[in-house]
Amino acid sequence: MRPLATTLLSFWLIAGGPAAAGTAAVKGANPMSTSEDIRAVAPALEAYAQKFVIGDLWKRPGLSPRDRSIVTVAALIARNQTVELPDYLARALDNGVKPAEISEIITHLAFYTGWANAVDAIPAARDVFKSRNIGADQLPPASGPQLPLDEAAEKQRATRVGEQFGQITPSLVQYTTDVLFRDLWLRPALAPRDRSVVTVSALIATGQVAQITYHLNRAMDNGLTREEAGEVLGHLAFYAGWPNAFSAAPVIKDVVEKRPR
Amino acid sequence: MRPLATTLLSFWLIAGGPAAAGTAAVKGANPMSTSEDIRAVAPALEAYAQKFVIGDLWKRPGLSPRDRSIVTVAALIARNQTVELPDYLARALDNGVKPAEISEIITHLAFYTGWANAVDAIPAARDVFKSRNIGADQLPPASGPQLPLDEAAEKQRATRVGEQFGQITPSLVQYTTDVLFRDLWLRPALAPRDRSVVTVSALIATGQVAQITYHLNRAMDNGLTREEAGEVLGHLAFYAGWPNAFSAAPVIKDVVEKRPR
Amino acid sequence: MRPLATTLLSFWLIAGGPAAAGTAAVKGANPMSTSEDIRAVAPALEAYAQKFVIGDLWKRPGLSPRDRSIVTVAALIARNQTVELPDYLARALDNGVKPAEISEIITHLAFYTGWANAVDAIPAARDVFKSRNIGADQLPPASGPQLPLDEAAEKQRATRVGEQFGQITPSLVQYTTDVLFRDLWLRPALAPRDRSVVTVSALIATGQVAQITYHLNRAMDNGLTREEAGEVLGHLAFYAGWPNAFSAAPVIKDVVEKRPR
Repeated sequence: MRPLATTLLSFWLIAGGPAAAGTAAVKGANPMSTSEDIRAVAPALEAYAQKFVIGDLWKRPGLSPRDRSIVTVAALIARNQTVELPDYLARALDNGVKPAEISEIITHLAFYTGWANAVDAIPAARDVFKSRNIGADQLPPASGPQLPLDEAAEKQRATRVGEQFGQITPSLVQYTTDVLFRDLWLRPALAPRDRSVVTVSALIATGQVAQITYHLNRAMDNGLTREEAGEVLGHLAFYAGWPNAFSAAPVIKDVVEKRPR
Repeated sequence: MRPLATTLLSFWLIAGGPAAAGTAAVKGANPMSTSEDIRAVAPALEAYAQKFVIGDLWKRPGLSPRDRSIVTVAALIARNQTVELPDYLARALDNGVKPAEISEIITHLAFYTGWANAVDAIPAARDVFKSRNIGADQLPPASGPQLPLDEAAEKQRATRVGEQFGQITPSLVQYTTDVLFRDLWLRPALAPRDRSVVTVSALIATGQVAQITYHLNRAMDNGLTREEAGEVLGHLAFYAGWPNAFSAAPVIKDVVEKRPR
Repeated sequence: MRPLATTLLSFWLIAGGPAAAGTAAVKGANPMSTSEDIRAVAPALEAYAQKFVIGDLWKRPGLSPRDRSIVTVAALIARNQTVELPDYLARALDNGVKPAEISEIITHLAFYTGWANAVDAIPAARDVFKSRNIGADQLPPASGPQLPLDEAAEKQRATRVGEQFGQITPSLVQYTTDVLFRDLWLRPALAPRDRSVVTVSALIATGQVAQITYHLNRAMDNGLTREEAGEVLGHLAFYAGWPNAFSAAPVIKDVVEKRPR
């Protein structure tokens, strides 16, 4: 059984033709490499993917396949790596990430990685949604009822940031309050814990070390466990490179150790 | 009137078909998403763009639309995000950035963000120029008369950098003097103040926090105001992501506060 | 002779049509700009390339053309800049980098810059290999005999990292030992010194300043000289931008000065 499963998974993870992933080809985009392409250049790359990424990483019990999909998709969008995105979006749906959550992840990352990163992720998501007949009824509305806000905590945050940067950059301070913390973070289609996972993954994947402390604490307040945080980091080593993982590690250690157990 | 203007602007900013932007399609390139594509994936993304980016950010009085175009184009090139570039280059021309200035921005960013970033920006600029019949006569010459150099300040800079790094990396030190400060920065087709805006925008947009202090001081020496610096940062939050903006904020605050008013 | 050589080199370096580089066009990919395209947008960019990059940088004696090719290819893959990659891979072969070494560089960078960066480099390498009839017999096997391991040094490294991060992220610590230092680094198809050059180049090119100290020391243990280290930095200023070079410079200085001469 193993050889067959491995072959299929390989096809998905490093090769993934459109058919295998159930996605339509993105018109005009660079096509993703096939297993054959990879073997024609770097046989070891495929072997490592089989043995360690597919055969081990994605099966580790410390983080669910659904979470690993969220982490991977966030990293790819944050790094503007759209070639592999159709395949990983299709797998995210297979792993239980809802279309509405994918929609929300893309919107969220417009703010946390740059507007063009979100817009560049649209063609891949559009085609995956289309191939699975996912229509507007499965997407979150542009606006609607919000999650409840912890007014005291938000006031404290806004005051602190306002005192620091209100004189220097009033627009940044104002948008941070109005758009991010009193709007985006209150959208119900992505649970705060998952929104935090997306945010922390994007920060680690783009080397934004200075912003990890606040958001990892927020993630753990929102329910991310110590073990899951460690697995997110190990997972991102493969998808964002070892240097990003090791630059984030001391900050993650510091945050985790300072929290009450 | 408002609905129409909003629709047009939306079409420009997040969707922008070639016709709307007056640009020819870049052959072989990934096409930019249309409003319809975005609505098929993330209705909220389009709503946020309408309400906050088009409807508010670009209209803020603290930074001119021309400057906002320079900041945005610099950020896109620095981050190698070429899909949206044709549209933003067309709008830059509409907002008063001259073809010669666009040419110079691309050349400048070869040095400040990497050679391939500049070369990757060529197809978009070529097509926008072509569609508007902008010929070689409107471009700055490869070489020619230079702006006057402040010899004392340059000598001081060169001495300081030479003492620091001359032993370790003579080639870097030599090229910095010969190519950058005694050549590139003296090209007259882009005003020093605008060249500084391009540089600072690229640094913020790529998380180059350690290099901001020198270049923001230079920018303010060249005429960038405190208020404009704060607006550049708020603008880049949208185009390079909140983490880059917040990582730059303390450095910008420090620079601004240490300068005599 | 000079004008002809310069023209050819220019064609290679900033323009490089497929024919000139001996590469097949990458299907579906954005085509690289030609000299004509560049002149139609930024005549100065081409002039700078001629005078300083082709006419000077690549001819500097402190670092061999083969090394400069390795540094440049590593930087492009690390920054996911695939448009110029076919040309620089073809030149790498011309400069004496073996197909097996290119294969190994790509595999190595999957771990040091992110899996998608390696996969995105496959189409360019596949086409260059194909156009030169480079088959599987010239590629390193997926696995095979390894270089000898310095058990004492590796044990020391593993103990140090395990003490630091073993509690926080056991998966990262385990993979670092099993996959990187007891497998990837022991593959014989790329000499440890060259593997280190690839790693250090990728770190500098992506602004991973915090990881340079360990890997530059390792590179110099593996045979990289002080002079070569300085030339790598000057070379990367052009290919990864001045800010990355200047952010790395103090760390490189610190490493070099602390080593016994």
